Amino acid sequence: MTRVRDLSEDQILDRIVPLLPRGGATLLGPGDDAAVLAAPDGRFVVSTDVLVEDRHFRTRWSTGYDVGRRAAAQNLADVAAMGARPTALVTSLVVPGDTELDWVVGLAKGLADGCAPVGAGAVGGDLAGGPCLVVAITVHGDLEGRAPVLRSGARPGDVVAHAGVRGWSAAGLALLESGLVPAPVDAPTTGVPLEVADGVVLEDVWHRLVAAHLRPDPPLAAGVAAAQAGATAMLDLSDGLLRDAARVARASGVRLDLDPDAFAADRAELRPVARAVAAATGLGEPGWGPTPADVDRLADTWVWAGGEDHGLLATFPAGTVLPAPWTAVGRVVEAGETAPAAAVTVGGHAPAVSPGWDHFRA
Amino acid sequence: MTRVRDLSEDQILDRIVPLLPRGGATLLGPGDDAAVLAAPDGRFVVSTDVLVEDRHFRTRWSTGYDVGRRAAAQNLADVAAMGARPTALVTSLVVPGDTELDWVVGLAKGLADGCAPVGAGAVGGDLAGGPCLVVAITVHGDLEGRAPVLRSGARPGDVVAHAGVRGWSAAGLALLESGLVPAPVDAPTTGVPLEVADGVVLEDVWHRLVAAHLRPDPPLAAGVAAAQAGATAMLDLSDGLLRDAARVARASGVRLDLDPDAFAADRAELRPVARAVAAATGLGEPGWGPTPADVDRLADTWVWAGGEDHGLLATFPAGTVLPAPWTAVGRVVEAGETAPAAAVTVGGHAPAVSPGWDHFRA
Repeated sequence: MTRVRDLSEDQILDRIVPLLPRGGATLLGPGDDAAVLAAPDGRFVVSTDVLVEDRHFRTRWSTGYDVGRRAAAQNLADVAAMGARPTALVTSLVVPGDTELDWVVGLAKGLADGCAPVGAGAVGGDLAGGPCLVVAITVHGDLEGRAPVLRSGARPGDVVAHAGVRGWSAAGLALLESGLVPAPVDAPTTGVPLEVADGVVLEDVWHRLVAAHLRPDPPLAAGVAAAQAGATAMLDLSDGLLRDAARVARASGVRLDLDPDAFAADRAELRPVARAVAAATGLGEPGWGPTPADVDRLADTWVWAGGEDHGLLATFPAGTVLPAPWTAVGRVVEAGETAPAAAVTVGGHAPAVSPGWDHFRA
Repeated sequence: MTRVRDLSEDQILDRIVPLLPRGGATLLGPGDDAAVLAAPDGRFVVSTDVLVEDRHFRTRWSTGYDVGRRAAAQNLADVAAMGARPTALVTSLVVPGDTELDWVVGLAKGLADGCAPVGAGAVGGDLAGGPCLVVAITVHGDLEGRAPVLRSGARPGDVVAHAGVRGWSAAGLALLESGLVPAPVDAPTTGVPLEVADGVVLEDVWHRLVAAHLRPDPPLAAGVAAAQAGATAMLDLSDGLLRDAARVARASGVRLDLDPDAFAADRAELRPVARAVAAATGLGEPGWGPTPADVDRLADTWVWAGGEDHGLLATFPAGTVLPAPWTAVGRVVEAGETAPAAAVTVGGHAPAVSPGWDHFRA
């Protein structure tokens, strides 16, 4: 088994660089002091995001490929959220010397597969040793002559719309942390079988939710589609729907009122999973187990406050025909109209769950 | 004393973002999903570099400000080495929770001061917790209508030229590692006074060389000047003169023959420092101490193989009037002309010291 400490930086790069996609906007790829990218409209968008081992992923659950896919996806989503078309990314990678070379090769493949749907390139990087895995990506995009869609453009009367999944990543993480596994009830296993209803083991649910956590698949094309349809504000949902929606509300000086009915299907779908997780993790009073209210609260927390789905939230002028896959989930109202302190309300009321995720404190 | 774990990510950003320069090419600064930068000629250059605590810097020697200055400098040098004008950078920062907020604030100030000489902006970033400090920067630049200056353009007959300092960073690091300090001989101190000649303590030498290591000051304007003067190849010297010169030679299919006389002043200047470091660190035979040959070899190693000076190396057509601060240091010859195996020779011979620095193995 080859470990990275057995190779020089150049030898490692020789294994990685051929795996990386060039991308249509790349005028000069890896190998010089810098890459050269096209910016046909005379501007480009740029964003950076970092993933840290044991903060954002665990090697016990995530392969190198998973981390590459996830790192690409969450960065590309930031570009999409500006209404731009992703063009290329660069990667700074910190790896402990005892990391298997295959992990790093898998990361490169994951980056490549993450970039493929939008034709983005992976045009350069840096590699260093360190005490834990760190993947820092900077991504670029082309506005194609359009104005960037900011967080600050939402206006009272606009429709609030969403694209992507809701709560899946948080539910997938909860499944991994619970030890529930998608095995038949009577099979030998090191975990607890996931049985969500009357003896039915929902293997497909487990795989779908865990995959959503390990390899999120943001609706990248929805960003450009929203910009073309006249979106007034947009952002990537990385820290939870309520927390991120509040960012749009504050930047725009408005309130976002979300429609609870728009999320009913998500909550219903995740409730059996929440019941299994709650039971497996000992939620509720000792000796009694979780109540239906405990289960509801857990499912709601995933939907409203779960981070890292990397869906997109946008606002559109009233009457806009929403392009697929956007669906209406609420409306923009005057700040202070009914609930002065709240930037985000649900059916006119303060949200029942607390807003998610502070990346730094986590 | 405030530590970063006492604050949320947003609270930390509120302290940092106001310190960062906007930059002349910035159309939209920090605060949205991505920044928007101008690329007036329809292209931009991009490069990324990562600094890891205890690999690239030690908090015992480097303040946050030092690390910020250094991170900015080495990234901006990569843009300069393409013949581009640096426009803006983004930063992904990993910080342990017990890091003092002042360290992070210092880093932001160092980034700002590092960007100031070229008017570059600091337009965005990401912040995460982790087990050690990691500073990953991605930098962008404007080619202003010129072709990028690659490593592959050197042609036999070209002049090899250099801009910047040579060996200072390595000598500064050696001074720090040696425990030599710039105190008067008879003052109380925890280190060994640096006395380089007949009782004279060269305090200014210590400060200059240590500063060159902690806060390298690359000749950033020399990159654009070289491109305007018709440089055929160029690169940033981060891994040592011999190792980096070999990269130009291999990429161009030529040999670079360096003129030892061009480096005589550097070697002479660093030799007293090498003597002091050699004596303080026990170089040479036990009981005998370092010989003049040991001292010469140490000084030569700093000059020829010392990394992280971030000077620039370029080749120019013969007869080019070199713009300041470039000086001729050799010539480009046919590969295989006299020394088939060597990509770089010194006065026609294989170098006497081994080429520096493999960042990954270090």
